Amino acid sequence: MLRDELANWLKGLQSSICSALEAADGKAKFSTEPWKRTEGGGGVTRVIQDGNVLEKGGVNFSAVEGEVPAFLLSEKEHTVASTGKPDTFFATGVSIVMHPKNPMVPIIHMNIRYFEMSPPIGEAGNKVHWLGGGIDLTPHYVNENDAKFFHQSLKKVCDKHHASYYPKFKTWADDYFFIRHRNETRGVGGIFFDRLVADGEMTFEKNIAFWKEVGESFAGIYTELMKRNKDLPFSENEKQWQLIRRGRYAEFNLVYDKGTKFGLETNGRIESILMSLPPLASWQYDHKPQHGSAEEKTISLLKKGINWA
Amino acid sequence: MLRDELANWLKGLQSSICSALEAADGKAKFSTEPWKRTEGGGGVTRVIQDGNVLEKGGVNFSAVEGEVPAFLLSEKEHTVASTGKPDTFFATGVSIVMHPKNPMVPIIHMNIRYFEMSPPIGEAGNKVHWLGGGIDLTPHYVNENDAKFFHQSLKKVCDKHHASYYPKFKTWADDYFFIRHRNETRGVGGIFFDRLVADGEMTFEKNIAFWKEVGESFAGIYTELMKRNKDLPFSENEKQWQLIRRGRYAEFNLVYDKGTKFGLETNGRIESILMSLPPLASWQYDHKPQHGSAEEKTISLLKKGINWA
Repeated sequence: MLRDELANWLKGLQSSICSALEAADGKAKFSTEPWKRTEGGGGVTRVIQDGNVLEKGGVNFSAVEGEVPAFLLSEKEHTVASTGKPDTFFATGVSIVMHPKNPMVPIIHMNIRYFEMSPPIGEAGNKVHWLGGGIDLTPHYVNENDAKFFHQSLKKVCDKHHASYYPKFKTWADDYFFIRHRNETRGVGGIFFDRLVADGEMTFEKNIAFWKEVGESFAGIYTELMKRNKDLPFSENEKQWQLIRRGRYAEFNLVYDKGTKFGLETNGRIESILMSLPPLASWQYDHKPQHGSAEEKTISLLKKGINWA
Repeated sequence: MLRDELANWLKGLQSSICSALEAADGKAKFSTEPWKRTEGGGGVTRVIQDGNVLEKGGVNFSAVEGEVPAFLLSEKEHTVASTGKPDTFFATGVSIVMHPKNPMVPIIHMNIRYFEMSPPIGEAGNKVHWLGGGIDLTPHYVNENDAKFFHQSLKKVCDKHHASYYPKFKTWADDYFFIRHRNETRGVGGIFFDRLVADGEMTFEKNIAFWKEVGESFAGIYTELMKRNKDLPFSENEKQWQLIRRGRYAEFNLVYDKGTKFGLETNGRIESILMSLPPLASWQYDHKPQHGSAEEKTISLLKKGINWA
């Protein structure tokens, strides 16, 4: 079955990403924690802590199934059958968040997921399925060269598969990774896509190939960004700023992130869902960067529509 | 008008609470920041930082008005008119959160609010109005004597007005101040009530008297808890635990708190709404208190239905 094939491929991806990150960190090793979900399925959470470069991060694999939660069903388009009985779903994916020690190294997030929804067992109707994913970069200090490298790498992956993908998914990321109540983007964006299905020349199989390449691009991109920045000097002032930016990261994840919401609403494993939260974060009342500072420059670049590539 | 009377009374309460907290802290002074809301109304945010006892805290007054936001109108009972035009609302309240330095001093939260909803201007229908409020205590380490003192104080206030209020509002607080995804209460609870209207012998005026007394009880209760605990010794281990508990506090406020949601959805002043977030917080992957530790004992007491009074 496709779902098992993809779940197995994702497990392999998790493993290769962890190896690459361990090598680039040079000190810390990932823990490995398999878990089961009462309602069906489970996952393997892998966490790295107190490394040379990585202060805290997780690479989660999960494959869960069960009745479609009410908050998803309320969106009409999601219902396959209309029998009143709950539809069933299957979701598998890999989710990554890395919080580096050095404020000059950016936070990164990646998620790729495969989702199936089926009519209640014994009922008529068609199974629907789609692909989703995203990578976005959250520098504590925006480095324009790094942002350019990041977006060019993603554009290269996208362009190989369809010319419309990078512009479309880059704009989607700008809109999705947006902290509305702060009127600022989470970072320099990246790509985001959801409910990717067969469409014209792009068969489901072709989209799977694209989706896999997004996943495979992660390790090379982030280890390069680690290498470039891990030895840059920083002061207490920059460490403080990092804690404030991490606070914003926590705000996004707890208020807006759909993956977090999905996890909390479907009784996922809390420690796996919330591994994305920073090891240490700070909220200072009405903090405003000094005029002309690097912090102020970063804020000025946290907006939608910048053409980094 | 009642709304102006109550708003003025709340301003006075804000001022007297700030004075009492400054006196108890003995070092830090509250800043004072008036602000206006584009859509109508405004407030005064008062923040204290880096005190002897209080690390960061805010006492907010606000009085805002405008069109009822969509997320409130979706609850049918809230609509006064059914003309398709938006209803208007007026809301005034005082909100407090205090994060103390010493982990032996509990975090406290208090909010009292008055809410009016009116049919669109020029349309038929009645104005509805109600009172709401709550106080809850979040010790980093649960001290049973303090929890008892806290609940007995609140019970005394409630009992003076109606015998049913303490048991009803205590249970409501257990249910409201609950971190569902952690299956733990935020702290030792307190009281919570919403949409309090005239009901039998309890006229609206009598409920206002109760509501005011809740607000007036805050300063005495918290300054007593500050005094009792501010000089207790603590170690690095206890400071770490405080940061973890503050992380849970941030989770509650960003995921569940209705006041925060209301503020974010009605374009409130972000820095005033999020002053409730801790100055420093930590998330450690899968942290489990040691067997037999004070931290473990605290976790065991973070549940609903404990009769503290």
